[in-house]
Amino acid sequence: MLVEFDLIQRHFGLPFYSLGQSNSATVLTGIGDDCAVLKIPLNQLTFVSTDTLVEGVHFFKEDSPSLIGWKSLACNLSDLAACGAMPLGFTLNLSLPGVDENWLIEFSKGLLWYAKQENCPLVGGDTTSAGLNGNKTISITVLGQAPSGHGGFHRSLANAGDDLWVSGRPGLARLGLLIEYQNRDQLGLFCSPSKLSELQSLLSVLPVELRACATQALQQPEARLVLGKSLRSFAKACVDLSDGLIGDLGHIVQSSALRANVSLDVIQAMWLRFWPDLAQNHNCESFLKILVECTLQGGDDYELCWTASPIHRNLIQKLESSPLRIGSLASGQGVWLTQNGHESTLAPSHSYNHFAELTF
Amino acid sequence: MLVEFDLIQRHFGLPFYSLGQSNSATVLTGIGDDCAVLKIPLNQLTFVSTDTLVEGVHFFKEDSPSLIGWKSLACNLSDLAACGAMPLGFTLNLSLPGVDENWLIEFSKGLLWYAKQENCPLVGGDTTSAGLNGNKTISITVLGQAPSGHGGFHRSLANAGDDLWVSGRPGLARLGLLIEYQNRDQLGLFCSPSKLSELQSLLSVLPVELRACATQALQQPEARLVLGKSLRSFAKACVDLSDGLIGDLGHIVQSSALRANVSLDVIQAMWLRFWPDLAQNHNCESFLKILVECTLQGGDDYELCWTASPIHRNLIQKLESSPLRIGSLASGQGVWLTQNGHESTLAPSHSYNHFAELTF
Repeated sequence: MLVEFDLIQRHFGLPFYSLGQSNSATVLTGIGDDCAVLKIPLNQLTFVSTDTLVEGVHFFKEDSPSLIGWKSLACNLSDLAACGAMPLGFTLNLSLPGVDENWLIEFSKGLLWYAKQENCPLVGGDTTSAGLNGNKTISITVLGQAPSGHGGFHRSLANAGDDLWVSGRPGLARLGLLIEYQNRDQLGLFCSPSKLSELQSLLSVLPVELRACATQALQQPEARLVLGKSLRSFAKACVDLSDGLIGDLGHIVQSSALRANVSLDVIQAMWLRFWPDLAQNHNCESFLKILVECTLQGGDDYELCWTASPIHRNLIQKLESSPLRIGSLASGQGVWLTQNGHESTLAPSHSYNHFAELTF
Repeated sequence: MLVEFDLIQRHFGLPFYSLGQSNSATVLTGIGDDCAVLKIPLNQLTFVSTDTLVEGVHFFKEDSPSLIGWKSLACNLSDLAACGAMPLGFTLNLSLPGVDENWLIEFSKGLLWYAKQENCPLVGGDTTSAGLNGNKTISITVLGQAPSGHGGFHRSLANAGDDLWVSGRPGLARLGLLIEYQNRDQLGLFCSPSKLSELQSLLSVLPVELRACATQALQQPEARLVLGKSLRSFAKACVDLSDGLIGDLGHIVQSSALRANVSLDVIQAMWLRFWPDLAQNHNCESFLKILVECTLQGGDDYELCWTASPIHRNLIQKLESSPLRIGSLASGQGVWLTQNGHESTLAPSHSYNHFAELTF
């Protein structure tokens, strides 16, 4: 763990020191030794999750290093949130084509800023060469905790009759990605010519505030840690939406051997609340179709999606992040989409795949 | 954590299942969910360490995937060993330029074989694209435990008068690396022309058994977990030799504000025991010089180096791995080399640096 000791110490050592103090009862030894040593409080379970971000795959080479730092941790903490766990600390593996001090200064700033916000100290890490032509690769492993009575929300625990909920506004991150590609004049690379003009029309009339929200959802997501903690008493199954609503919901219905009915009307209404003038646009129907696709297929949202008994409906509605009840669970299998109360259709089983080209 | 869910499940899921059972009291949820959930036994501390291996930097593209898998875990577990901790589980981040099923089959075989040997289940991970031209990157984070009374061997706890010990035969891995470069006809790239012929002469007369040991030390190291555990009662400061003896020992003397005296005679005697015929070789002196440099400067050994009071000398000598007493600690600073009882010289402050070219 000590390769490039100086590099770690220089960029990640000092800010950690103050962070370490905020968690000093837990972190007995932080970065700089062979291992970090943590004291897990009595009657707590330890939660572990890990994720990698690769330049050119998960972020653009020119993206703000500070936002990359922020997001690298956020998408990991989102996995803890999806289990109702609160952060204990994290490790960082950086693989870089060379030592770019300016990039490291900004990257560590964004990363440690968010770490401080979530009280999640950096406890270990290493920095290695990615080879001269290699891409920057960022792997983060987060550790979290929750009381022994709460073993996480198992995705197999959904019941027929459960409500289906999402936090925030899933789909915003995919919209943000489309805006990014538009800014780079690369939109055409990622959709069919017939869709391109429709997409361009949509983006050309997008309200400024919605555009800003979408960009922020893509670049600076926040893990729903407080919500996840609040859900400990209510949720049965819970996932985060890193791979897209249909894909992630697919894991719940598969593990629980149930069918999910997702209301397209509710998702359309969500977008119309965000963008009330859309209803007057003569392209309203086709634009809404694109926005709903962002919600269903778009990855990179770090919202939560969970199931809960209808008896908790009123309490859940009052939780942070304006939870949205988008459907319910029933016997059967697969993810089904219902519209206008009509017979539903089976959702295409497509989830976010970083190996595939972005298809829209 | 669910990107490429199928890939993880296919290559790492089934073997884990049997591993998971062997640790079922600890691993409540393993791979396949957002987080792994671990139950840390009462009165135990948790140890965390993380390391990355990059193709072309830490291993050759053509290396056996199964040995790469083995070594990726071994060098991480070595950090636990250096803290006297025993493994709880690990997470894996794989970043690959594409899906090479054959490589994954062999890689997971070697990785999980060693994981099983050390009773260290895979509890989480993800697989991402490294981009088409990217290098394979393997990040592993290990979790370990030790009783609360044992907080790890802090490198600042060495005392003046302590003996200085190493396990096994440090330097073998560097010798193995030289053999690898020789096999690839690339030895000349990594040393000056004046040294090249000397090195070639040495390698041409290297006994077959020593050659095999060196190659194994490079390709299939084993973490000194049992030794680390045994040392809980004896060691003051302890590190593993991943960055080379002088470099890693440098961390101990710096943190403990002491001077280390390392006996070159002991290290020479170690090599002569390995290779008794060397004493009759007319190049004995210059060959020994190279071998001793392998020990002092060579990285990638996963042996332990520790300090302990002389009162434990007899007990330590009986521990596994044939510990070698290579010197002692005294007041002062720096790492000093003594030979033939003569005045010592300050060791060059060079440690293994994956960003630099291999200089020998």
